[in-house]
Amino acid sequence: MKISINRQSNVSIREQIYLEISQRIRSGLIEPNFKLPSVRDLSEELSISLVTAHHVYKMLDNSGLTETIRGKGTFVRKGKDNTSGDHVSAPFDWQLSISDYLPRASFWSQSAVRLPPNILDLASACVHHSLLPMHLIQESIYQTLKKFPHALGQYANFQGDTDFLLALTEYLKLLSIKLKPHQLLVTNGTQQGIDLFARTFLGPGDTIALETPCFSAAIDAFRLSHANLQPIPVDANGIRVDILEDLAPHIRLKAIYTVPTGQNPTGAIMSLSRRQDLLSFAREHNVLILEDEPHRELEMTRIKTSALPPPLKALDTDGRVIYLKGFSKFLFPGMRLGLLAADGSIYNRLLAAKSIADLGSPLWLQKSLLPFFQNPQLLRSISKMSSLLDARRKNVLQTLDQLLDPRIARPKQSAGLHLWLSMPLGIHTDYLIPEAHRRGVHFLPGSIFYPGEPETNHLRICWTNLADEDLPKALEILCKLLNDAVKNHDA
Amino acid sequence: MKISINRQSNVSIREQIYLEISQRIRSGLIEPNFKLPSVRDLSEELSISLVTAHHVYKMLDNSGLTETIRGKGTFVRKGKDNTSGDHVSAPFDWQLSISDYLPRASFWSQSAVRLPPNILDLASACVHHSLLPMHLIQESIYQTLKKFPHALGQYANFQGDTDFLLALTEYLKLLSIKLKPHQLLVTNGTQQGIDLFARTFLGPGDTIALETPCFSAAIDAFRLSHANLQPIPVDANGIRVDILEDLAPHIRLKAIYTVPTGQNPTGAIMSLSRRQDLLSFAREHNVLILEDEPHRELEMTRIKTSALPPPLKALDTDGRVIYLKGFSKFLFPGMRLGLLAADGSIYNRLLAAKSIADLGSPLWLQKSLLPFFQNPQLLRSISKMSSLLDARRKNVLQTLDQLLDPRIARPKQSAGLHLWLSMPLGIHTDYLIPEAHRRGVHFLPGSIFYPGEPETNHLRICWTNLADEDLPKALEILCKLLNDAVKNHDA
Repeated sequence: MKISINRQSNVSIREQIYLEISQRIRSGLIEPNFKLPSVRDLSEELSISLVTAHHVYKMLDNSGLTETIRGKGTFVRKGKDNTSGDHVSAPFDWQLSISDYLPRASFWSQSAVRLPPNILDLASACVHHSLLPMHLIQESIYQTLKKFPHALGQYANFQGDTDFLLALTEYLKLLSIKLKPHQLLVTNGTQQGIDLFARTFLGPGDTIALETPCFSAAIDAFRLSHANLQPIPVDANGIRVDILEDLAPHIRLKAIYTVPTGQNPTGAIMSLSRRQDLLSFAREHNVLILEDEPHRELEMTRIKTSALPPPLKALDTDGRVIYLKGFSKFLFPGMRLGLLAADGSIYNRLLAAKSIADLGSPLWLQKSLLPFFQNPQLLRSISKMSSLLDARRKNVLQTLDQLLDPRIARPKQSAGLHLWLSMPLGIHTDYLIPEAHRRGVHFLPGSIFYPGEPETNHLRICWTNLADEDLPKALEILCKLLNDAVKNHDA
Repeated sequence: MKISINRQSNVSIREQIYLEISQRIRSGLIEPNFKLPSVRDLSEELSISLVTAHHVYKMLDNSGLTETIRGKGTFVRKGKDNTSGDHVSAPFDWQLSISDYLPRASFWSQSAVRLPPNILDLASACVHHSLLPMHLIQESIYQTLKKFPHALGQYANFQGDTDFLLALTEYLKLLSIKLKPHQLLVTNGTQQGIDLFARTFLGPGDTIALETPCFSAAIDAFRLSHANLQPIPVDANGIRVDILEDLAPHIRLKAIYTVPTGQNPTGAIMSLSRRQDLLSFAREHNVLILEDEPHRELEMTRIKTSALPPPLKALDTDGRVIYLKGFSKFLFPGMRLGLLAADGSIYNRLLAAKSIADLGSPLWLQKSLLPFFQNPQLLRSISKMSSLLDARRKNVLQTLDQLLDPRIARPKQSAGLHLWLSMPLGIHTDYLIPEAHRRGVHFLPGSIFYPGEPETNHLRICWTNLADEDLPKALEILCKLLNDAVKNHDA
């Protein structure tokens, strides 16, 4: 167990170690019944006092994550919703002596859950295929086989296929995003872009500020870099730059991670003035901004009425913003393609990291999307999807208004594919999951969206992944479940 | 500039820092004219003495990589073959103050070279499309569009599509590799498998033994983990286990990286007894083995006559071997798919890392390959390709015998897609690249295949990437170029 301790942090060492071990347990990286090192071994391994080590185990015991048995040691407890997979229990005990560098993998732990059959999935953030322009892409693939019969037999450039990058440049112009092909790097989805950034620029001792709550797979990637994560609250206008300003004299930030358009999970859209403030802050304090924008295409109505501010990258004059644009939310998650835009040596270093990670994204996929992006029908089709989704979101919010106990908070407005719901304090949404599965729905508990000690009374639902006929049923089950939880809590 | 120093190593601190800075310069991560930190700043940043810092810069100056100008500082020199790309020189000087964690990216620096048009490429390790079963995969893709019309609209499981993993299990049986679906993880090519292993299990203070010379993109990934890399020589029977034994009392190894079948770049095939010795060594010293086997399918003649030993993974009884199987060498590099096999918690931890890296490989690609792997024609087709390649390799070796100066050493036997040639000592193959480009061929200089201070008189050529009609021409140009270099060196 490798634990990074930051002795300069204002978080106590005991808290840091507690947090790291608890996150490993929560995300399933340390399995139930695993025996933690003895107090003496932990203290030696991490160069901490025996008292500190003892305290860490007491905190873990108190949180219910471990159980210390006198004379035997401290063991990880089996969680309430912990279903051990069948390949977890293989008899390879010696492997536990092999340490690893994974501090947490919360997104994995939630998404690798084996769901009951026919469950209505309100967790996956993707658009149901009936809403996607499937006929266009199929046609595209047929065309590609004819036009580029040898694309399967070749590696792509590390940065991506030249034709593809050119086509993307033209496409992005239609969304008022002006980028040049040499600024672009094709990634395997946005997640790889986040990960490339983290491993290239973040390490022990560096600090990155994260909008909080924050997309959990991003937190996992940042945590793997062993940097310090500084949570920054989000309000209806986006990340709280005033809090960044307050912290600036005390904490040297290296980077800021933000999803300005349809923040994940709160759904906030960062206002134009907030965007400008954030850029000024970054310039003044020499901080990098990692801008993750998967949802722009879904906001066509706002784009057409100029109600959506431009991406931070479009306002960036000195190559400070690294821009990530996923295609999975408005196109084809089955393709796992995304785009990273950056400048200068920041770009070069990310490209070097990409080459190390996988030698470049599949040429065949890039060629398959190429005629698609060149097709004038594409934007029309996305535009249509966007209005359908707008209507659907409106319906969903109305349904929640009708069905949901008023003590459960929900946003009035929300961009993106998801909604962030807040139960009364004291209701732990992790523990609603098993009952949700019994009743036939799945969602993401809010606890995985926190870089530090989690708030546990929230949940995230996605309302785009189900067919038209299944969504009302799913919402009905969900509302009943949440209402029951509120009633039980009161009783 | 982040530099990991291992104060327990038997390599001096000065050597370690010299090596790290020189590798960054050689691989283009630090650009020409870049001003290195002052002796005082370097000494403070790395907590080393002024004398040591001074010595490092002297070594860099002596190697020709930097130039120290009195009163001004130490600057990176423009290399002989250094062609600065047009997006390298963007005016974002402040970015140089942003440190990164990339120690080297040699494969990137060689592969991102912009080649003159119509150059004959003897560098890329892939099989020319005329030899690949292109008609089978095209048929497969048509079938997939019909059978799985919605695969584009879905994420895959992190570990890979269930049907795909099942099909692969059956396919591998035909090659005498017995694995179960729950041991398998789909990766974006072998490179991602290497990288997942490195970032999960290696960090500062750990040591991994590498066959040397060694595939440079693998070295890059291991170096990025900031572990110590221990070079171990390879002979005609594979990695020298006797040297591992000699080192064992002095160095605590965590892992060993090997390409046992068609070692890259030497082409060696590890004998069965060497494989058994290596496994015994690993068991005795509690070491993990990362087995990278991209070339097995190309050795069908040897497989049929039982002349090819089984993979280490097939001999592994306690889940100690992590097995990587790329498809790019015998199938479609444009798909960038590969396979990782592991057991127990080692598997689980690698799966968690995969989820962090990219949320899983593209479902659409897996579905496209599915009918292909289920097609009984596949093995027949690969078998045919393998004999064609055997014949081609024989021709190439004959041609080299006829055309090449006898002072240039080449292997008598070599598996894989490549050949490793050794020039007389004193001839630096890096410096032959510009002339090679002028004459119309490209190859990889040997220097990038070394984890530490490189040997510089070797080169790697791949003889499979060119069409039948182009290969003789390329070999002729290459032999002439190398022979001229030997003559000039003597003169």
